[in-house]
Amino acid sequence: MLWENRRGVKILLDGSGAKCRMEVMHENKYPVVNHARDPRFLTLRYLQSSQGRSRTGRYIIEGIRHLARAVEQHAPIESVFLDPSVLSNPFGQKLARQLRQRGVSGVRLSHQLYCDLTLAADAQGIGAVLRQRWTPLAEVTVDRNSLWLAVEDLESPGNLGTTIRTAEAVGVTGIFMLGADCDPYDPATVRATMGSLFSQSLTRCLPRELSVWARSNGVAIVGSSPSGLLDYKALSYRFPSVLLIGSEKLGLSEQLLDAADFMVRITMRGHCDSINAAVAAGVLLFEMSSQRRRDHE
Amino acid sequence: MLWENRRGVKILLDGSGAKCRMEVMHENKYPVVNHARDPRFLTLRYLQSSQGRSRTGRYIIEGIRHLARAVEQHAPIESVFLDPSVLSNPFGQKLARQLRQRGVSGVRLSHQLYCDLTLAADAQGIGAVLRQRWTPLAEVTVDRNSLWLAVEDLESPGNLGTTIRTAEAVGVTGIFMLGADCDPYDPATVRATMGSLFSQSLTRCLPRELSVWARSNGVAIVGSSPSGLLDYKALSYRFPSVLLIGSEKLGLSEQLLDAADFMVRITMRGHCDSINAAVAAGVLLFEMSSQRRRDHE
Repeated sequence: MLWENRRGVKILLDGSGAKCRMEVMHENKYPVVNHARDPRFLTLRYLQSSQGRSRTGRYIIEGIRHLARAVEQHAPIESVFLDPSVLSNPFGQKLARQLRQRGVSGVRLSHQLYCDLTLAADAQGIGAVLRQRWTPLAEVTVDRNSLWLAVEDLESPGNLGTTIRTAEAVGVTGIFMLGADCDPYDPATVRATMGSLFSQSLTRCLPRELSVWARSNGVAIVGSSPSGLLDYKALSYRFPSVLLIGSEKLGLSEQLLDAADFMVRITMRGHCDSINAAVAAGVLLFEMSSQRRRDHE
Repeated sequence: MLWENRRGVKILLDGSGAKCRMEVMHENKYPVVNHARDPRFLTLRYLQSSQGRSRTGRYIIEGIRHLARAVEQHAPIESVFLDPSVLSNPFGQKLARQLRQRGVSGVRLSHQLYCDLTLAADAQGIGAVLRQRWTPLAEVTVDRNSLWLAVEDLESPGNLGTTIRTAEAVGVTGIFMLGADCDPYDPATVRATMGSLFSQSLTRCLPRELSVWARSNGVAIVGSSPSGLLDYKALSYRFPSVLLIGSEKLGLSEQLLDAADFMVRITMRGHCDSINAAVAAGVLLFEMSSQRRRDHE
């Protein structure tokens, strides 16, 4: 006879009436997926591809920190996947229980299948499928303190994720994704955001659309380039503005260079001709946001 | 009969006197290494390990940009390794020729062996073994504009390399490596420095030694932490100073927290509690160096 205590641990009452604690956790009630050809596993695998994400409008997150942030930020979680052989962290187990109790569907993957899916070197045994959220350009509104980031074509998912994380830290109003290849929902990007993706307002548009929108809303477009005329510290950013970040190798496209109202330069010393794109974005975003902050003090 | 023109291309004069251009490049004169058990390949493999690097005082660099920077900065190149089947870039081929003409030894690796060695997704077919250079703490001298970076225990080689690259861009006087595990010559770190390692003055010491050195030379130790009392913009850095950067997960050790003269805070917004360590280092280093720059304008 099975009996469940308040902590959700199943207790087996055997014939003698003695209680035997069973190693059955709540999350173990999800069905088991063992085969690589199981459609539920194939769906998870499909979301690792750019095509899979764009066709379904879904994406995958992994790890306790990410999932906890997703819950905290009310991100639309559709299902969870677990590897019970790895999910030993009590907080992670509690999170899985809570989601199951809220009616979120899920599966338990075999260790092998989970390893096939994860990017993490130290996989924590928990992940989820989420719905992507995009704000249409027409719904992006402006106030006098608005600061946006616009990413054109960062090749490195790590740099993109790190930049989204910085954008959250400085409190940007939103992020524009300008290139078709710029995918904030790529698993490696999501991983580098460290959970800061869920609170962001993301808008996908073309460079030309951004330019038209900025003009008609009085938003200044600020780009950066080694040949920028102004040092980035010399400009006052006390107006609604959008910072452009371009490709690591190629910088900004001609189209965006033409659209920019200001081109600033991060002055470097010695033989150095460039810094990492995510570091450059950080230096510029913190300068722009700290000028705004000083206005409010 | 073989004849070599001024560009180093071998010309075969056949019986008829006609010249036939042979596809024999200068770098092809290096001996070929085909077997994974060849001691020359094993030496290269050994330098991929931390033990190999510390026991030999050597390290490996890869790619045309890195090698060109090493030559430009007069870094001590001991030998080169090539994969002629991949080295198609004319500048890379020229670099290989120049090094051979300067008497630098080398080997030609089979494509398979080169692939086993490289971290690059788009390997360029050229790399080198270099001698590590360390400046003893006793030889580190101070002037009133000196700015140092001290790295305690960055876990990610990418973050360490990116931070070294930023340090070059702001023109630091030198970099202290405080943890035993903090290896600037790890191949992934070297890769992320994008060639900015060769101009750096690197010093390995213990946190306690740094603290004693800073005290006796009038150098201020600046740390950063989310609980720092001063916003990083509020402090004037117009004195010789060393910026401490700690582990991504754990921050600075107790020992360094105690040693710091100032603890600054990068103020963040919203739910964000942290940014990437290399971005944080970039934001702080650019603020510190731009205050110095303004003094000179």
